[in-house]
Amino acid sequence: MTRAQLFEQIQKKQSFLCVGLDTDLNKIPAHLLDTEDPVFEFNKQIIDATKDLAVAYKPNIAFYEAMGAEGWVSLEKTINYIPKEIFTIADAKRGDIGNTSKLYARAFFEKMDFDSVTVAPYMGSDSVKPFLDFKEKWVILLGVTSNEGGKDFQFLQADGKPLYQHVMAKSKEWGTADNMMYVVGATRPEYLSDIRKTIPDHFLLVPGVGAQGGDLQEVCKYGMNAECGLLINSTRGIIYASNGEDFAEKAREEAKKLQGEMATLVQSI
Amino acid sequence: MTRAQLFEQIQKKQSFLCVGLDTDLNKIPAHLLDTEDPVFEFNKQIIDATKDLAVAYKPNIAFYEAMGAEGWVSLEKTINYIPKEIFTIADAKRGDIGNTSKLYARAFFEKMDFDSVTVAPYMGSDSVKPFLDFKEKWVILLGVTSNEGGKDFQFLQADGKPLYQHVMAKSKEWGTADNMMYVVGATRPEYLSDIRKTIPDHFLLVPGVGAQGGDLQEVCKYGMNAECGLLINSTRGIIYASNGEDFAEKAREEAKKLQGEMATLVQSI
Repeated sequence: MTRAQLFEQIQKKQSFLCVGLDTDLNKIPAHLLDTEDPVFEFNKQIIDATKDLAVAYKPNIAFYEAMGAEGWVSLEKTINYIPKEIFTIADAKRGDIGNTSKLYARAFFEKMDFDSVTVAPYMGSDSVKPFLDFKEKWVILLGVTSNEGGKDFQFLQADGKPLYQHVMAKSKEWGTADNMMYVVGATRPEYLSDIRKTIPDHFLLVPGVGAQGGDLQEVCKYGMNAECGLLINSTRGIIYASNGEDFAEKAREEAKKLQGEMATLVQSI
Repeated sequence: MTRAQLFEQIQKKQSFLCVGLDTDLNKIPAHLLDTEDPVFEFNKQIIDATKDLAVAYKPNIAFYEAMGAEGWVSLEKTINYIPKEIFTIADAKRGDIGNTSKLYARAFFEKMDFDSVTVAPYMGSDSVKPFLDFKEKWVILLGVTSNEGGKDFQFLQADGKPLYQHVMAKSKEWGTADNMMYVVGATRPEYLSDIRKTIPDHFLLVPGVGAQGGDLQEVCKYGMNAECGLLINSTRGIIYASNGEDFAEKAREEAKKLQGEMATLVQSI
């Protein structure tokens, strides 16, 4: 998917919502457990209930990998079920030496048809570039993560600026705003102004709104750009809004609330 | 596996060789392609040919993931085939927020029975600690990687020392030398003396000997400790020594050469 197509979808749906599909057999409604593939059945119903409100879906790959080969099958069915005009993110946080990163890229871009993969920056350029060789596919590089441990290394000061700024300044030369995005946790909106000085045009994938305590208005105030430039992810607040038979309906209600807030923000661009 | 068991195996086999199982359908001998599961068949024969010479096997997960659910099945068969007294490494370079890292840990430690997983440090403590909750299982954290891009961030100076030293100094508090190791590329042996000042007792997993140009003697001179403290990985030089029908035999010959060099070094401990 191109950046123009993504922005078009944002304007059409008046939304920049990304729904996380972190589907856990221990958390999904009990009545689904008797179906042939409970994980896919859950995802299917969540997608059906939210696909006019969300511009992106983001399965976290760990949830599928934890189920072995079976989980991989559920993931493949899920990615094939998501309508093609919706942006898809394999939240995999991969990264390895060049020839190996290329294989991860094939896994997510060819074997499956994801639009993007999240990638960890520690191993540098040749761990990231192989993902950028695929046309209309994206790398979403970890910048500032929303978790507590994010502080351990990402804020270390080197030559007067924090590590995450080095990561952004250096990596933006590997690709462009048309094939790279960055993860910036919503729990740290105070860094967004500085981040926008380094990467004004790139999309940011922002987890941490909702369950993790991030604030949508704050994030948009400092992070939004002329083409929106934000994908706000919500997972637990939407997909686990209910664990009864009404789970999809409740998921829709929660997604609708966020989309409603977003509509006003999109109109202000 | 415990550290004592690993050292015992090193002494018994007079070897600290780790064989990488980066099994690629495009590189394995053509005659295997007609078998039911060519990847597993290749691994099985490599394991049979080298299991008295190697103390560890390290499948890089990307090679299996690139084949989808099928690859996952080959990986499961491979890990089940490796004799229990041999140390196994899932070279996956995973890492995510706490509850998600826990799922990756389950994937490799429970769903499969790996002894260890390689983990990327960028997301900090809560991305690493969930792996340490499993008894007699190990985290192998990326320290200094052997690839060209390793220089991009790992050597950034913060408070007078490079990032990788911060990673080691901080992370060694999360576990102990009994459940953590570090990846240190053989292409950078000059850093091993400094690394040993920070983590004298931990095992180091050292890729890059052979095809990538690292030197075994140099690595041992600066990196070996009283319990060996090194696992030297070789992949291409062993498993792709021949792509004819004699591939397993040739792999054994190459493994035997390295083990021979290692025997002298183990005796010097």
